[in-house]
Amino acid sequence: MATVNEITNRSVDFAKWYTDICRVAELVDYSSVKGSMIIRPYGYAIWENIQKVLDKMFKESGHENVQMPLFIPESLLNVEKDHIEGFAPEVAWVTMGGNTPLEERYCVRPTSETLFCDHYKKIIKSYRDLPKLYNQWCTIVRWEKTTRPFLRSREILWQEGHTMHQTEEEARKETLTMWHVYEKFQKEYLALPVIVGKKTEKEKFAGAEETYTIEAMMQDGVALQNGTSHYFGQSFARAFNIEYLDQNNTLKTPYQTSWGVTTRMIGGLIMTHSDDNGLVLPPKIAPIQIVFIPIGKDPKVIEKIEEIKNNLPEYITSKIDLSEKSPGYKFAEAEVKGIPLRVDLGSRDLENNTVTLVRRDTLEKQTASLENIENTIIKMLDDIQENLYNTAEKRRNSMLHDAKNYEEFIKIANELPGFIKINWCGKTSCEEKIKEDTGYKSRCILIEEKTDGCCAVCKESAKHKIYFGKQY
Amino acid sequence: MATVNEITNRSVDFAKWYTDICRVAELVDYSSVKGSMIIRPYGYAIWENIQKVLDKMFKESGHENVQMPLFIPESLLNVEKDHIEGFAPEVAWVTMGGNTPLEERYCVRPTSETLFCDHYKKIIKSYRDLPKLYNQWCTIVRWEKTTRPFLRSREILWQEGHTMHQTEEEARKETLTMWHVYEKFQKEYLALPVIVGKKTEKEKFAGAEETYTIEAMMQDGVALQNGTSHYFGQSFARAFNIEYLDQNNTLKTPYQTSWGVTTRMIGGLIMTHSDDNGLVLPPKIAPIQIVFIPIGKDPKVIEKIEEIKNNLPEYITSKIDLSEKSPGYKFAEAEVKGIPLRVDLGSRDLENNTVTLVRRDTLEKQTASLENIENTIIKMLDDIQENLYNTAEKRRNSMLHDAKNYEEFIKIANELPGFIKINWCGKTSCEEKIKEDTGYKSRCILIEEKTDGCCAVCKESAKHKIYFGKQY
Repeated sequence: MATVNEITNRSVDFAKWYTDICRVAELVDYSSVKGSMIIRPYGYAIWENIQKVLDKMFKESGHENVQMPLFIPESLLNVEKDHIEGFAPEVAWVTMGGNTPLEERYCVRPTSETLFCDHYKKIIKSYRDLPKLYNQWCTIVRWEKTTRPFLRSREILWQEGHTMHQTEEEARKETLTMWHVYEKFQKEYLALPVIVGKKTEKEKFAGAEETYTIEAMMQDGVALQNGTSHYFGQSFARAFNIEYLDQNNTLKTPYQTSWGVTTRMIGGLIMTHSDDNGLVLPPKIAPIQIVFIPIGKDPKVIEKIEEIKNNLPEYITSKIDLSEKSPGYKFAEAEVKGIPLRVDLGSRDLENNTVTLVRRDTLEKQTASLENIENTIIKMLDDIQENLYNTAEKRRNSMLHDAKNYEEFIKIANELPGFIKINWCGKTSCEEKIKEDTGYKSRCILIEEKTDGCCAVCKESAKHKIYFGKQY
Repeated sequence: MATVNEITNRSVDFAKWYTDICRVAELVDYSSVKGSMIIRPYGYAIWENIQKVLDKMFKESGHENVQMPLFIPESLLNVEKDHIEGFAPEVAWVTMGGNTPLEERYCVRPTSETLFCDHYKKIIKSYRDLPKLYNQWCTIVRWEKTTRPFLRSREILWQEGHTMHQTEEEARKETLTMWHVYEKFQKEYLALPVIVGKKTEKEKFAGAEETYTIEAMMQDGVALQNGTSHYFGQSFARAFNIEYLDQNNTLKTPYQTSWGVTTRMIGGLIMTHSDDNGLVLPPKIAPIQIVFIPIGKDPKVIEKIEEIKNNLPEYITSKIDLSEKSPGYKFAEAEVKGIPLRVDLGSRDLENNTVTLVRRDTLEKQTASLENIENTIIKMLDDIQENLYNTAEKRRNSMLHDAKNYEEFIKIANELPGFIKINWCGKTSCEEKIKEDTGYKSRCILIEEKTDGCCAVCKESAKHKIYFGKQY
């Protein structure tokens, strides 16, 4: 195992600190395939935990999983105009099958709206077939030029929900419901104090009428898009000629949504909670929540540890580190890997009826009584989860700024990390001027649909309040 | 929903019967992507159940999940000679990223030995790093010319285990262990009376030293390969220069295995258990084990059904069909979809303190007392599982033949469906003569490593007993 010494300090180089943690905590490895990463067992176990919780939330809200093809024929990708314009520049094209050139080239799916629509056209005939609430867990490919583990990769593991509804109202409700499922999941499980808002016309998904976004703020004040939910209206349904007979035997066009989150959330987790000593994971999503480290070889110590482990509820994942390594090495490994709670027990502790608890979030070490130790542990895990959220929220709040006018806005944008709240008229020209004047890749998040006052840029009547932030 | 009337009789056209069931039971749909299928929610739920059970078995035996890239650069695929010869003719090649031709073309992984080896080379340095017991759930692509749902498709959902070991003994043991995990799973969960054996030199996996296979026999007597486990020896490790320092600080080459099963098992399930009325599923793998159908609208009936449902153990999945359809329509739907047990309850039943149970395997209808109904149901599900296995085993046994000489062998091969046991010298020329003389795509399964007597073909001294069968 690599050690904490290989982790660059955040203050020295935040980007390097991030990739060091990904590597040293053994979350990913680089591969011989340019732009693709290998997700190692410890990283993949985080994704499995994310999948388990989200999949349950999806199924409880009536969604079913399906599996669509990996490929999209070029003619199918071309059906919806905005969509192809958005995706064509960044897809991977399959042109040969074995030694034979294909008659029509196929792209590896960058997203599956077109495939779902093609299928929906065949299976939606009557109002009885609606709603269709489908989800897919899969890999997508976008031919990115610059890549970083979890944040931007040519291959992405994700889920994509695609639903069809009889009415606009129902589809809009679905869009918002799934947006809030993501928000709830990220707050409660990932301990991310995300900001939810709408994307501007310029930034919304290719083909969507509205895109709702979940934005997390990293420790360096930069925004990370951590999930989106789109309302499509009837644009795809029209392009694909999807029609159904309603209750009055009249042909109608259904309304559509799609929504997705990716392994990028793991990047968000890392850049929100981790520190210069390595990964920090919220207990609710950590592959291993507790590591027990016996000090010395006293069989009574091992026996006691096994007893504690067995008395913990089944939903708590723990391991006893019985390897030949020294305790010091084990401590370092637990720290670098972000295991939320370390429990050390030696012969002397046993005599004193005590145990040493070391929490990863604060690095605090404390002696606890062995009486009722299971309850102490459960309480401490809850406390770690809560503390991680509160710490992240406090830091986020300290980087939320208000700008009264454009001058102040530019000053803050140049000097302080974080998001800046301003009034905006809604015109793309003003949004573009901001991006030009600040000079960095940025993100606008509409947080209030209606506002008084005037646009910070053009001084015309304002329509929205927005958060403006630098983005990953 | 389509109905039983759309299912061709097995006796008329077995192949059509199979694809009719796939479609009518809503397991798959055809897509606009030639050779790729859409796995619909009901089909995908079967795969999810398979994954859940197998993943648990893998983890309990110490395996960890990882995620490797989707693509393999051509130069990487070329490293192991036998491997590239086996796979090059059937891979899909990505040659463009966006609008830019790639410097080196990438294939979509047909299997991931080369990717795992490339990674193992980086992470295996010392005997402390061994064994590596990795598994991956993913999609692979093989550019097949003729395709059939689940059986042969251009895209396949599967799992692939790839392990590295210090010693030959340990690697051979792993190969056999996973082979028997598959056997156990297929017998106990899928109720398939599979035959396990070794593949001949001619049929083994490209690059493997030994390939062990799990073969299921379909109702028409044809063999379906339902999983394989390979012992690689050191061939890949040598080709990829994977070396580690052993306990004496000496550089050593590790030993390797790989093993996999695919969604093809769902095809095996269908062609083993289903009948002319539709799908038949073993309870242990069915997405819905019980459907409750209320007869009439008496609220007391619904209440009683809910009470029974709630009293069942949590591991049993059931649904109450409260849709507006007629009971007759609901019965037909439950039958076509192969729901193992139907429970009908009406007001009159309630008065009599009875309930009607209809089991899908035998189509038997029986009246049972409402006293202790939960136990009756649990027992019946167990009985259905057992009966499906026994019925399939009995049928399989009726199609296992012994041939004393080549004349008898050819006569049976021409006249009877099933597998034929013969002695074989082990020479590829004799194997090829059999394939030529029988004239169909076939499978040889070595079931006994040593035997007396002489080869049925060349009369020379026999080395093995084999089962010979027509294959899917």
